[in-house]
Amino acid sequence: MLRDTLRRRGPVDLHSIIAQALQMGDDGHNRNRAATSLFLRTIGAELIGGGAGADADRAEVFRFIDSNDHFMLNLVMAAGKLMAGAASGVEGSTLVTTMARNGTEFGIRLSGTGDRWFTAPAPVVDGLYLGSFTAEDANPDIGDSAITETVGLGGFAMAASPAIVGFVGGTAAGAVQRTLAMYEITMTEHPAYQIPILEFRGTPTGIDAALVVRTGVRPQINTGIAGRQPGVGMVGAGLVEAPMGCFVQAVNALGTEVAARPSSPRHA
Amino acid sequence: MLRDTLRRRGPVDLHSIIAQALQMGDDGHNRNRAATSLFLRTIGAELIGGGAGADADRAEVFRFIDSNDHFMLNLVMAAGKLMAGAASGVEGSTLVTTMARNGTEFGIRLSGTGDRWFTAPAPVVDGLYLGSFTAEDANPDIGDSAITETVGLGGFAMAASPAIVGFVGGTAAGAVQRTLAMYEITMTEHPAYQIPILEFRGTPTGIDAALVVRTGVRPQINTGIAGRQPGVGMVGAGLVEAPMGCFVQAVNALGTEVAARPSSPRHA
Repeated sequence: MLRDTLRRRGPVDLHSIIAQALQMGDDGHNRNRAATSLFLRTIGAELIGGGAGADADRAEVFRFIDSNDHFMLNLVMAAGKLMAGAASGVEGSTLVTTMARNGTEFGIRLSGTGDRWFTAPAPVVDGLYLGSFTAEDANPDIGDSAITETVGLGGFAMAASPAIVGFVGGTAAGAVQRTLAMYEITMTEHPAYQIPILEFRGTPTGIDAALVVRTGVRPQINTGIAGRQPGVGMVGAGLVEAPMGCFVQAVNALGTEVAARPSSPRHA
Repeated sequence: MLRDTLRRRGPVDLHSIIAQALQMGDDGHNRNRAATSLFLRTIGAELIGGGAGADADRAEVFRFIDSNDHFMLNLVMAAGKLMAGAASGVEGSTLVTTMARNGTEFGIRLSGTGDRWFTAPAPVVDGLYLGSFTAEDANPDIGDSAITETVGLGGFAMAASPAIVGFVGGTAAGAVQRTLAMYEITMTEHPAYQIPILEFRGTPTGIDAALVVRTGVRPQINTGIAGRQPGVGMVGAGLVEAPMGCFVQAVNALGTEVAARPSSPRHA
């Protein structure tokens, strides 16, 4: 029913929704309440008036999305993957195009090293736990959602989302500081993703692995915490820093590749 | 159709929607984008599934609300009026229960002086103009919407709403400073309306006319600017401070009343 509604309506501009949501307290990773609201506003009239099925069923589609403020995370991740993909394959580039974790290892890929993974042990997340869960129940960092940080959202945009600290821990002042620190390891400021409280400065975007290694500042990720027992699901949410080891490996590997190339730019 | 939908659904908790919207960058006066979104989410499923009229007509109701991010201002004003009304009629109280402007005069009422108005000339709003309008087209301050400031929203909650400066002018840092100044003239901090960037401090709430007179700090209002020619409507939005004259009159009048009362608390 959602598919039919989207097909009838035509494309939804996720880029615009994400940009607006940052003006409304979202970070695009663990706080997507505004983006989910704007998405429902975007498709609502078509869902009501488009005649896709019975009223009760269409109401259930609306209720399903409304019941989960994280709904838009799935779409933000897909948008982030497309953005990062567009920056892949630039010769000699130290731009980080993927950060992902499988619960055992934390892996990154650089634009200049293609599909090669550089990994280090997955770190433990420091956060708040749901219900009666504790740190004992937590698995090391896991999931694909750090693609949001890879494109200047999530932990990199926390200054736009002070209310997120009620979910991932810390203080509002700390959230601003985390964003400010990320400007030290990024290539640019996002032209569309702006942070009102920083006078509409663009979010720190495009992690430069060389800057990570040089400054010792590690990418900040805010993330859900998965249970260590299969089937338990999410047990909390918190903050974690990417491990330094994979950045050192990646920069060394890129350096070796560039040095071995006959037409290396350093000889130009 | 909206009335029928609301009757079938049952009461909407505006207090909760306003509180949540302050976590999403609204101030409750000139920025109500989050509150309007949350309201649409609140009634959406009932609007779709409740069978009130044809699909196309219900879609039009959704589209009508979606087309105006100020939609919720009307409901916030009504909620504010009820809150302020509940605080009226407290003997000897210097609490401001109404601030309203008719384009010529700015008037206030105190809890301790009942329905009596204290007025001063309506000030000119300092703001940003829509399209090709200029200050030449502006009427002095007009409207009932300052009831939002009266209950700890609007100009008093601007620290929660840094993105509003794109609409009313000024800087995000200035918006925070405006809220901080209002703590000097208010009786309390709102228990439910919290400002994330101030570590969830409650909004400055309950203007004390005696504190306004004593400190010289005037209530901050952010507001639309009406055209001076009939029929033109809104020409801009900006910031204005309530005039001191009506507060001086009100405090003097209350003092005279209290002094004349045989069982005055000062003799207790």
